[in-house]
Amino acid sequence: MTAISKLGEFGLIEQLTKDIQLQNSSTLTGVGDDCAVMHYPHSEVLTTTDMLMEGVHFDLTYIDLQHLGYKAAMVNISDVFAMNGTPRQMLVSLAIDKRFSVEDIEAFYNGLRMACNKWKVDIVGGDTTSSRTGVAISITCIGEAKSEEIVYRNGAKDTDLICVSGDLGAAYMGLMLLEREKSVYYKQVDEIRTKILKAKEQKNQALVTKLTHDLNSLGNFQPDFAGKEYLLQRQLQTEARGDIIETLRAAHIHPTAMIDISDGLSSELLHICKESNCGCRIYEKNLPIDYQTAVMAEELNLNVTTCALNGGEDYELLFTVPIGDHEKIQTLEGIKLIGHITHANLGAQLVTRDNQEFALKAQGWNPLKSSTAAE
Amino acid sequence: MTAISKLGEFGLIEQLTKDIQLQNSSTLTGVGDDCAVMHYPHSEVLTTTDMLMEGVHFDLTYIDLQHLGYKAAMVNISDVFAMNGTPRQMLVSLAIDKRFSVEDIEAFYNGLRMACNKWKVDIVGGDTTSSRTGVAISITCIGEAKSEEIVYRNGAKDTDLICVSGDLGAAYMGLMLLEREKSVYYKQVDEIRTKILKAKEQKNQALVTKLTHDLNSLGNFQPDFAGKEYLLQRQLQTEARGDIIETLRAAHIHPTAMIDISDGLSSELLHICKESNCGCRIYEKNLPIDYQTAVMAEELNLNVTTCALNGGEDYELLFTVPIGDHEKIQTLEGIKLIGHITHANLGAQLVTRDNQEFALKAQGWNPLKSSTAAE
Repeated sequence: MTAISKLGEFGLIEQLTKDIQLQNSSTLTGVGDDCAVMHYPHSEVLTTTDMLMEGVHFDLTYIDLQHLGYKAAMVNISDVFAMNGTPRQMLVSLAIDKRFSVEDIEAFYNGLRMACNKWKVDIVGGDTTSSRTGVAISITCIGEAKSEEIVYRNGAKDTDLICVSGDLGAAYMGLMLLEREKSVYYKQVDEIRTKILKAKEQKNQALVTKLTHDLNSLGNFQPDFAGKEYLLQRQLQTEARGDIIETLRAAHIHPTAMIDISDGLSSELLHICKESNCGCRIYEKNLPIDYQTAVMAEELNLNVTTCALNGGEDYELLFTVPIGDHEKIQTLEGIKLIGHITHANLGAQLVTRDNQEFALKAQGWNPLKSSTAAE
Repeated sequence: MTAISKLGEFGLIEQLTKDIQLQNSSTLTGVGDDCAVMHYPHSEVLTTTDMLMEGVHFDLTYIDLQHLGYKAAMVNISDVFAMNGTPRQMLVSLAIDKRFSVEDIEAFYNGLRMACNKWKVDIVGGDTTSSRTGVAISITCIGEAKSEEIVYRNGAKDTDLICVSGDLGAAYMGLMLLEREKSVYYKQVDEIRTKILKAKEQKNQALVTKLTHDLNSLGNFQPDFAGKEYLLQRQLQTEARGDIIETLRAAHIHPTAMIDISDGLSSELLHICKESNCGCRIYEKNLPIDYQTAVMAEELNLNVTTCALNGGEDYELLFTVPIGDHEKIQTLEGIKLIGHITHANLGAQLVTRDNQEFALKAQGWNPLKSSTAAE
């Protein structure tokens, strides 16, 4: 492994950026000056930014740096799609501590580049620096859209249909699965350590040696993910749904409001209702849920509907379309009609399979809940 | 103090952004959707980003959150000026740990807003989240410039004059001063703690009580900064030199190359030489150094020229102008002519007061040097 100090800041930046080939005519100058320079004479410029902190947003025992880079890029690209825009440029800041080598940072950048190449996004700048402890990632994505194409959160109207792409709750089930396997692993580690202590007390050196060997080979611990690959993929290999944007354009469907699902369906629906000053009714029976998600929820004794409503990290698109698009939208693959927009005074309601109504609440993941100052 | 969990993520964002009044016609939509939306039909768009990590880039025992917000905004604004652009929008990401309250975050935002108001920059988005430990700040600044106005690092030509705004080394001396006073403080704490231990051993309860009182009143420790206020100001209240950009425009001077001095004069000059494929000669006697900087360097037994060359964090502008602007530039206040550009094969040279020549080296602050993986 190569120590970062061997390259220094500027050497590292050069190594990471030397192969970048700019793909967009809107990118005039990329990495290498005080600012990147872009040119958008005929479009509006869209910008979005996200910060990911180790121990809060990701756990490096679950996700390797290449997947992390891919995911960090995709969640920002997803925000540009959620405005019906086209992502064009990206600024990447990364702070790392002493644990990491040049190869680690290259793995992170490989993931970034794979995501950017998929959607033809140019990496035009950023900052690579050190942290005292833990990894911090901040990404800004820049995109473009014609003024009349942009879809905000505030355009939903009474009677509009509510649609969602893909399926819901799988990314959250993937996280639960990873956490379960991690706790299985640490339980095994604990058990062996306890046995080693006892063997030492009994001065049974042969047993100590055997147990120590067992402990070391736990490093090759193979968690049991059989039949649950889709859940892992949804958690570790986030995809921004630019394909859905293309599908809608091809079908000449222009959403009235749109948002990407990062915190959970309930939370995002409430954003649309608040910004559009409307209510909504969605139907439990219409929520798109994958078979693996349902099985995993059952295993964990969780209500699968709750997982679909509040799971988060699906990065699917939630959008509304005029009721006149009803037939068109039903023919499109990968898009599910889950309900409709109502008058604001009807609130945001979930209609269950047995026809009961519940008010939707934003119970999605809230990173600031855990960072509570003393109450 | 208000616990952040009382407001939650969305409540906090609302509280922080409710008073924002957009000041630029290029800002179409600010905070509140998946992306901010901007409009730049007649200019190029400039973007820059910087990440600041607690314990690496700042120490909260030196700097309060309001000054930190101000500085974090200014160092990004400075990058837009360094392209001869006008800063317009800002995206702000902040990750904080459990130590902080709503009021702390408001203090940070107050500092941000003061810096943004000074240069009429709109805060249009960002991310507020938690960290496991330590504060992380990432800011992206967006600006504009006409294509023909942009000044890159690569336009310096043989015989061009090298100019620098303000004075150099003071921000670094301010940091040294703060570190000295901090170590004085901790030395006093250590001494009293040692005496308390001894008094406890001797069961002298009266002395223990007195010493504990002394220890507590050290919390009101007043460091000795008399006569050094300018150094502190330069370290803690960074200013982006937009006034110099305005001065140059008023005088119809168009720099051929420009950069802001964040890592130290030597490091930035070498960037210009590398990008412009040229050499340079600068003169020790011409380096602008404030009286307080010189006094402090003497106190600390440091070579003041070394401090001016490698100190960093001055955020002054370093730029080159055609030799024909010689007379014009000499009349401008706050700008010092320090040397000239040469042919590349002459290298980057410092001419000392006694007419010796030394090759310039980038010894400026390198955040990645300290984050060395095991060699």
